[in-house]
Amino acid sequence: MRYKITIEYDGTYYNGWQEQDNLPTIQNSLKKALFKFTGKNIEVFGSGRTDTGVHALNQVAHFNLEKNYEPFKIIQALNFYLREGCLERVEKYKKIINNSKINDCQNFINFYFQNIQDIVIKNCEIINENFDARFSAKIRHYKYLIHNLYSPSAILQNRVWWIKQKLDLEKMNEACKYLIGKKDFSSFRCSECQAKSPIKTILSCNFSNENNLIVFKISAKSFMHHMVRNIVGTLKDVGTGKINIEKFEEIIELKDRKFAGTTAPACGLYFDFVEY
Amino acid sequence: MRYKITIEYDGTYYNGWQEQDNLPTIQNSLKKALFKFTGKNIEVFGSGRTDTGVHALNQVAHFNLEKNYEPFKIIQALNFYLREGCLERVEKYKKIINNSKINDCQNFINFYFQNIQDIVIKNCEIINENFDARFSAKIRHYKYLIHNLYSPSAILQNRVWWIKQKLDLEKMNEACKYLIGKKDFSSFRCSECQAKSPIKTILSCNFSNENNLIVFKISAKSFMHHMVRNIVGTLKDVGTGKINIEKFEEIIELKDRKFAGTTAPACGLYFDFVEY
Repeated sequence: MRYKITIEYDGTYYNGWQEQDNLPTIQNSLKKALFKFTGKNIEVFGSGRTDTGVHALNQVAHFNLEKNYEPFKIIQALNFYLREGCLERVEKYKKIINNSKINDCQNFINFYFQNIQDIVIKNCEIINENFDARFSAKIRHYKYLIHNLYSPSAILQNRVWWIKQKLDLEKMNEACKYLIGKKDFSSFRCSECQAKSPIKTILSCNFSNENNLIVFKISAKSFMHHMVRNIVGTLKDVGTGKINIEKFEEIIELKDRKFAGTTAPACGLYFDFVEY
Repeated sequence: MRYKITIEYDGTYYNGWQEQDNLPTIQNSLKKALFKFTGKNIEVFGSGRTDTGVHALNQVAHFNLEKNYEPFKIIQALNFYLREGCLERVEKYKKIINNSKINDCQNFINFYFQNIQDIVIKNCEIINENFDARFSAKIRHYKYLIHNLYSPSAILQNRVWWIKQKLDLEKMNEACKYLIGKKDFSSFRCSECQAKSPIKTILSCNFSNENNLIVFKISAKSFMHHMVRNIVGTLKDVGTGKINIEKFEEIIELKDRKFAGTTAPACGLYFDFVEY
């Protein structure tokens, strides 16, 4: 039986989606939870990788199990073992901190970790064997959150990019128009990117104001490594007036990463959802 | 000169607002930041205490300084020293964790703490000497956030109360009506509460749906210790059907804490704002 799961995660602690030896990753954690549940090593296939520190609201993955389970049962079991995985990690810190002479660490332990679970299965369904989380994906949607006030946000630490300088949303949205369509996005491609081609098709992208945050939404069939963050970093320069819209257009046309802006921090980026 | 500041904080790490020896509190942290800024011990007066783990979006406090500073300068300086305070705390953990043999702790250090600042000054203004953050307060507004889905939220860990069972918002709002007005709220008063009288006046309270969260808003001139959390814990029982509205009305009338529900967890509670 093939199962399709929808996953939410706080990426702060993890070295991204992709399995790595001796490093905490989302895929590692899911495989551990599946092992605890089934007693077998089960491969988990994601719709796409996310980088270190990047979050996901509705990441999708698939895996095959020999037995036929109620999807409800899988959600329940995986969430239980994912939480157990988080608690095991916390136990290690607890021991170290308890053995230390630091006075105020008890709070750190008691308060911070009491509700820890940073990977959650939101949904599960039995799906046709032809379904592939990665290759069946038609449109991927990302979100980027910016806190644009003079002071940082205490509540949204590690959830947003804090930009002090007032951003001109109208100009940024004007610049967004130049990104739409099938183009060579080499300017926003990071040096380690392994994509065969820099040609991608951006279906939509724009900034809006939601609940006192600036929300950037972008969708495409697929993206290159760091592409969204490099785009956001360059659009920020449009917003602050460091570059004008003509310059932004030129940056795209130059097809060279060195002319674009900085890579926006991982903590503001969310893998939002994927359409099949 | 008297200054009025507006403060946002993530209360997860702190033993509440009120100054305590050898324990991290919001008031301690503010006093430390003010000491670093002025070289003097400055008293800080808050509009009200918050408990361990409770957050604030717009807490208000006042203090007096001999010198006349630009409010802008105070925001800048206090945010700088508050961040420094957070980093000093993190340094202590870093040392311990670096000395340990735990393999994946580097991520914990590098990712989690890179953007740490859990107390932020949002605003500052020079204010009349008659102004007192506590005694001039006319209406205090609290918010309580509930995540009401089958699976917990990874992104909102320590920011919401996760309630699995489907809540009946209509019934809960019906019950809210019995709380409005000047009443004896002994049923929702915790045993350690030091308030002189259990008579309080709730001006408004209700539940609404906002961005997939259930948001409870409540306002009064003042509240007793744990009062909002005890009210939310009891209204939850109305929402799950454990008690009916008649029973809820009876609980208020019995004026005895032992008949009310559990105390809702601190992590869902936010001191929202205060009117003067």
